[in-house]
Amino acid sequence: MTTPTASASPRASALPLRPELADEAPYGAPQLDVPVLLNVNENPYAPSEEVVATIAADVAAAARGLNRYPDRDFLGLRGDLAAYLGRESGVTLSAEQVWAANGSNEVMLHVLQAFGGPGRSVVSFAPTYSMYPEYARDTHTRWVAGRRNEDFTLDAAHAVEVVEREQPAVILLTSPNNPTGTALPLAVVEAVLDAAARVRVPDAPDGAGAVVVVDEAYAEFRRAGTPSALELLADHPNLAVARTMSKAFAAAGLRLGYLAASPALVDALRVVRLPYHLSAITQAAARAALKHTTALLAQVDALRAERDGLVDWLRAQRGPTGEPLAVAETDANFVLFGTFADRHAVWRGLLDRGVLIREVGPAGWLRVSVGTPEETARFKDALTDVIAGVITEQEA
Amino acid sequence: MTTPTASASPRASALPLRPELADEAPYGAPQLDVPVLLNVNENPYAPSEEVVATIAADVAAAARGLNRYPDRDFLGLRGDLAAYLGRESGVTLSAEQVWAANGSNEVMLHVLQAFGGPGRSVVSFAPTYSMYPEYARDTHTRWVAGRRNEDFTLDAAHAVEVVEREQPAVILLTSPNNPTGTALPLAVVEAVLDAAARVRVPDAPDGAGAVVVVDEAYAEFRRAGTPSALELLADHPNLAVARTMSKAFAAAGLRLGYLAASPALVDALRVVRLPYHLSAITQAAARAALKHTTALLAQVDALRAERDGLVDWLRAQRGPTGEPLAVAETDANFVLFGTFADRHAVWRGLLDRGVLIREVGPAGWLRVSVGTPEETARFKDALTDVIAGVITEQEA
Repeated sequence: MTTPTASASPRASALPLRPELADEAPYGAPQLDVPVLLNVNENPYAPSEEVVATIAADVAAAARGLNRYPDRDFLGLRGDLAAYLGRESGVTLSAEQVWAANGSNEVMLHVLQAFGGPGRSVVSFAPTYSMYPEYARDTHTRWVAGRRNEDFTLDAAHAVEVVEREQPAVILLTSPNNPTGTALPLAVVEAVLDAAARVRVPDAPDGAGAVVVVDEAYAEFRRAGTPSALELLADHPNLAVARTMSKAFAAAGLRLGYLAASPALVDALRVVRLPYHLSAITQAAARAALKHTTALLAQVDALRAERDGLVDWLRAQRGPTGEPLAVAETDANFVLFGTFADRHAVWRGLLDRGVLIREVGPAGWLRVSVGTPEETARFKDALTDVIAGVITEQEA
Repeated sequence: MTTPTASASPRASALPLRPELADEAPYGAPQLDVPVLLNVNENPYAPSEEVVATIAADVAAAARGLNRYPDRDFLGLRGDLAAYLGRESGVTLSAEQVWAANGSNEVMLHVLQAFGGPGRSVVSFAPTYSMYPEYARDTHTRWVAGRRNEDFTLDAAHAVEVVEREQPAVILLTSPNNPTGTALPLAVVEAVLDAAARVRVPDAPDGAGAVVVVDEAYAEFRRAGTPSALELLADHPNLAVARTMSKAFAAAGLRLGYLAASPALVDALRVVRLPYHLSAITQAAARAALKHTTALLAQVDALRAERDGLVDWLRAQRGPTGEPLAVAETDANFVLFGTFADRHAVWRGLLDRGVLIREVGPAGWLRVSVGTPEETARFKDALTDVIAGVITEQEA
C-alpha cells in the first residue's frame, strides 16, 4: 500500500470561517510550567488515594459496559448531585431539578441554546467571568454588560434598569463573582428576578419572562452567613443556579458542571443537549467523587481559612506607592488585589520567582488563587520581594 | 436551619424557550430493557478485562492530578489518534491534523459553530443520519437535504447540482451512510470537493469555498477495497474526515469522536471549542483503549464477517408478500432491510420476541445492528417467526 502524506499547509483564507471568529484566538489562560500555580482557581489539594481508588473502581465497573451508550438522562448522577446540594444548602431538590454537562461551560451553552440565540440578548454585569461573552458569541446571542460598583458589589436599581432597558432572554449573575470574589445578597437576586419576570422576550410566549442564572461556581467557599440562591428556587421557575465540581470537589480535570432549576427549565435544556453528552466514565467518576463529600468539604474549610488569612495579610501590605494594598471582599477561593500602576510588571516579577497568578480583571488589579499554606508562603515572599524591587527601581 | 423545598411545578409557558424548540422532544432512540439490543449500532462485545484494567489504571493516574484543569490541547491523545488512523488507512497524519470532542456530535457542533451559523446553510443527502438536522438547528444553520438514489448511492451530478444551487458553507457526506450502510466511491467525494471549492460562502473571504465533512463513523467496518476519504486529505484543506471510538473501539459509553483535517481547519475548531472540553479522565480512558487497538480491530473483523453472513441470510428470506427481502449494500455494522407494508408491526413483533432493532430510514425499511453470533441467531429466529405470523394473519 502506498503511504500518501496528508500534511497540507494551513491556508486559513481558504476556509469559510465565520467573520466574527476571524481574529479570535482560542480562549484560555497560559498553561506554563511553574512551581506554584495560583492562576486558574484550582483546588491545590490533589485527590487522596481513597478518592483515586473509588474513582478507579467505579470507572472500571462502568468500563465493563463501555460498548453501550451511556444513560442519556443520568438520573443516578443527578440524584446524587441533588442530595449533595440539599446537604450543602439545606434546600431539598429532586433529580429532575438537576442538570449536568461537561463543565459549567457546557451547562451555560445549553442555557443559551435553549433561551438565547439570534434576536435575543444576555445581560451580565462587569467586571465578571471572561468566558460569558464567548458563550454569547457561540450561540449568536447579543452580549450586554451592565456594571458593578467601584467595590464590585451590584446595585439592584442599576441591574433592574439594565434588564428593563434591554429586555434580555437570559440574565447572568455571578455569586461569588469571578474575578472579584464578590457574593450577592439575596435581595439583589430577588430584585433581578422580579424584573426578569416582567421582561418580554422576543418570540417567547406571553408572560414568559427572562431566565436568570446565578453562577455559584465558588459557592462552597462563601463565608458563614452568605446565602445561596438555591434558597430562591422554590418560588422562581425561571431561576437556575449553576455549580461545578471543579473547585470544591477538587475535580477541575473531571469537567462536571451542573445546575439546579425547575423541572420545566431542566426539560428545556434536554431538548438542546447533544444526546449522550455525558459519558459513562464521567458519570461514574463524578458519582465516585461525591461519595467522598465529607472529606472534600473539610478541605474546603481549610481553604476558606487560608483565604481569610491571605486577605488579612494582603490588607496589611503596602504597595509600591506606600499606600496599603486594596483587597476586594471575597467569598471565593481567590483574592483580587491591587492596584498597581504596572500590574504586568508585578505579575511578571512573581512569575520570575516561580509563582504564577492571573493578570485579569479591572486595570491595576491582579487575582491570586488560594493554595496550600506552603504555596501561600511562597506567594507572600515573592510579592514582598517584587514590591520592594519596584520601589527600589522607582528610587533609582 | 429551615429546609425550604424547591419543588416548583413545571410551567413551560413561563419560560422563554426559542420558538423553533417549542414542540421538540429530546433526541434519542428508546432505551428499553430487552435481552437482544440491536438498535443503536453498538459493538456487542464488551471490553475485555485487559482493556478494563488499562482504563482503570490510566484513569487512576489521571485522577491523581484531577484538581488541575486538563490539557486544553490534548496533543497526546491527538497524536495517538493520528497514529491509529495512519495504521488503519495508511495515511500519515500529525497530531495537529486531528481534533476530538465528547462524541462525534460535539465534533460536528464545532464544525457548524465555526463555519455554519445564521445566514449560512449545510447540505447533506437523505436518507441519512437523523442527528444532522439537529446540529443545524442548534447552530442556526439552514438545513438542506439533497437526495440519494433508490439504491441509496449518491449521484455525483445531483450532489454537484445541489451544492451549486445552495452555495452551502458546509457539506456533509456520510460513508458508510447511516441508516443505509452505503459507502461512497472516492470519485463522488472528489466531485463534491471540486464543487465545494467553487462555492462562495456568505461573509467568507474570497476563494474560501465550502467545508466538506465526510462522516466515517463506521469506516472500520467497510469491506475490503472500499476506500477512506482520509486518502484525499493531503490535497484538500477544506476536507474533514470524522471518526468515532464508539463503534470499532467498542466504546460508545466513552463519548470520543474525532476528525482529521488540515491544521488550519483544526485551528478554526479550537476557536469555538469550550475551553477544557475534553476531561483528563476522557483523555486517559481513550488513550488506554487505543493501546488495545490490535485486539479491538480483531473483533471488528469478526463483526464484518458476521455482517456479511447476515446480509446473505436476509437476501435468502422472503417477506410477507412472498417476494425476497430487499437488503441494502452495507459497509457498516448494521443492515437496512425491508420493505414491509407495516414495518412497525414487524418491529413490534421482534420486540415481543426480545429483539430490539430500529424503526428508522425510508418508509418500509428496518435497521438491525450486527451483534454476536448468538444475538444474530435470536434475531433470525424472531424475524422468521414474525414474517410467518404476518403471513398467517394475512391469510386469516
